[in-house]
Amino acid sequence: MRLSSETIRLDLLHPFRIAREVSDHKNNVLVRISDGGLTGIGEAAPSRYYGEDAVSVLRALEEAPVQLDGDPLGLEATTDRLVSRLPDDPSARAAVDIALHDLAAKRLGVPLYRWLGLDPGKTPVTSFTIGIDEPETVRRKVGEAAGYPALKIKLGSEKDLEIMGVIRSETDARIRIDANAGWTVDQAVEMVQCLSEFDVELVEQPLPPGSPEAWRRVREAASMPIIADESVLVSSDVPAMAGLVDGVNVKLMKCGGIREALRLIHTARAHGMRVMIGCMIESSVAITAAAHLSPLADYADLDGNLLISNDPFRGATVREGRLVLPEGQGIGVAPR
Amino acid sequence: MRLSSETIRLDLLHPFRIAREVSDHKNNVLVRISDGGLTGIGEAAPSRYYGEDAVSVLRALEEAPVQLDGDPLGLEATTDRLVSRLPDDPSARAAVDIALHDLAAKRLGVPLYRWLGLDPGKTPVTSFTIGIDEPETVRRKVGEAAGYPALKIKLGSEKDLEIMGVIRSETDARIRIDANAGWTVDQAVEMVQCLSEFDVELVEQPLPPGSPEAWRRVREAASMPIIADESVLVSSDVPAMAGLVDGVNVKLMKCGGIREALRLIHTARAHGMRVMIGCMIESSVAITAAAHLSPLADYADLDGNLLISNDPFRGATVREGRLVLPEGQGIGVAPR
Repeated sequence: MRLSSETIRLDLLHPFRIAREVSDHKNNVLVRISDGGLTGIGEAAPSRYYGEDAVSVLRALEEAPVQLDGDPLGLEATTDRLVSRLPDDPSARAAVDIALHDLAAKRLGVPLYRWLGLDPGKTPVTSFTIGIDEPETVRRKVGEAAGYPALKIKLGSEKDLEIMGVIRSETDARIRIDANAGWTVDQAVEMVQCLSEFDVELVEQPLPPGSPEAWRRVREAASMPIIADESVLVSSDVPAMAGLVDGVNVKLMKCGGIREALRLIHTARAHGMRVMIGCMIESSVAITAAAHLSPLADYADLDGNLLISNDPFRGATVREGRLVLPEGQGIGVAPR
Repeated sequence: MRLSSETIRLDLLHPFRIAREVSDHKNNVLVRISDGGLTGIGEAAPSRYYGEDAVSVLRALEEAPVQLDGDPLGLEATTDRLVSRLPDDPSARAAVDIALHDLAAKRLGVPLYRWLGLDPGKTPVTSFTIGIDEPETVRRKVGEAAGYPALKIKLGSEKDLEIMGVIRSETDARIRIDANAGWTVDQAVEMVQCLSEFDVELVEQPLPPGSPEAWRRVREAASMPIIADESVLVSSDVPAMAGLVDGVNVKLMKCGGIREALRLIHTARAHGMRVMIGCMIESSVAITAAAHLSPLADYADLDGNLLISNDPFRGATVREGRLVLPEGQGIGVAPR
């Protein structure tokens, strides 16, 4: 198997503000793995929050080729080796894992969802994200997002409640809140109580990771489900959060790829937890890979490719808010 | 897809005594599912302990055909429907699940282990089971099992320690103990302490399901790993046993098939638990299906087909104690 990698610059439609940072573009890394006349493609969307950037991904990928087995279908052993050699590079591992799944499903001659035994008719509605901004800018963005039946609103400024009022005056779409770990426990308790007036579907990561007692307080104060994002990266993070939250946000870039995402989903379900499948700022390569898993999820938040102006690929699409999987073999993406 | 079923009588080489019952044969049910010129085969090994027998399996299977999707690869949706329609028939569901996996992997043109991304070089050593019997009979059986590097000894009579002495005078094989829920908590605490003299690799299900405090006492008294069998049927049983045992015994007939077995294995691993893959009295059909999952396990106890005199099939074999997977497509079994 041969592996090549390439940095791509994704330009954001709107400068993207969440609780932690602001940016106008994102550097991701594409990975291609070729074997026997077929090529699989994957993507790393590194996040500084998890200690990665495009440079660290490229460096990690120098280690990857020697870990590839002769058999692209030998995914368990290959991904185990990658975890032990690249423990701190989850998005680099995700890029390789996605490319291998794309290649292996092409070898088998089926779309990834069929290889995984999933029903493409069961994809959920995906939310469209509105970043932190001035209330009037948020009003305009909500207007532009009128085609989406679910919005994900990033909160974490002192204007949170004003913004919520503006949004609810504009739309009766489903509203999901993401605080990106930006509240203190007292703020979070107050916010989940206030948010119940705005018919909010769920609240994601109200608190920083840690402090079970703080999470318990917030969950007890909340009338809507609480979903863990930054607190749950991989399957072994689930047990500690069981009982403290109602569900987990599964992201390929946090957990290292499709194989660990399945373990994470299975573990969450065994605990009776809800499952969201989410993303970073990503092209249609990584978004489509995640979309293939979405029939296993209650909620999708796979809009990373809709937030950029120069997506080099086409793959999964959104029709009336619901994800539509491509029919091609593998993950089914093609250059735009 | 067309489904047919047939009862098979498996004759036991030795009348089989465990803590609960004795028998000289076992009635299992074969299931065949055909689609597009290919046929998948599965097997139900019903257990009265879990409320099933061959008659209840055949009755349950009358419900199965209408639950089959047009696509044999649509396993998630099909197995979900089977769980909701046949919640109390896990071995009947396992038979359908195995047959569908066999059929789907044949459709994809690969052995089941390759479809699942597993390394056939990572199968573990399987143990060979010695039932409860008089000490001198146990001595003879241990002699006959000299080719097996690991023995599973069923205990649960007042002669347990005498039997252990006889065994250790005959062999230095790895010894795994299975009490099949046959001890009280006081007996179990005493036994795990006594068993430490006999270099025991693990103790399976020392107690009946229930009473976390009793399980905690036994685990604290034990120097070897404690494995849950009857206490953990499906993935959602894992969280309650986490911290009380060191691992779980995964059986297709308890959990309803390969798909749920993967969920169960993933959940156990997320809790840092060890994994054994086990069986009932089964022909090479169900044993081989489980063997394909064994690269994910620390321990295998897949000897159900070695305990019968009239196995109608050949599939996985045992070489120097280690499982060897067949290379054929699907689960790779053939009539003997």
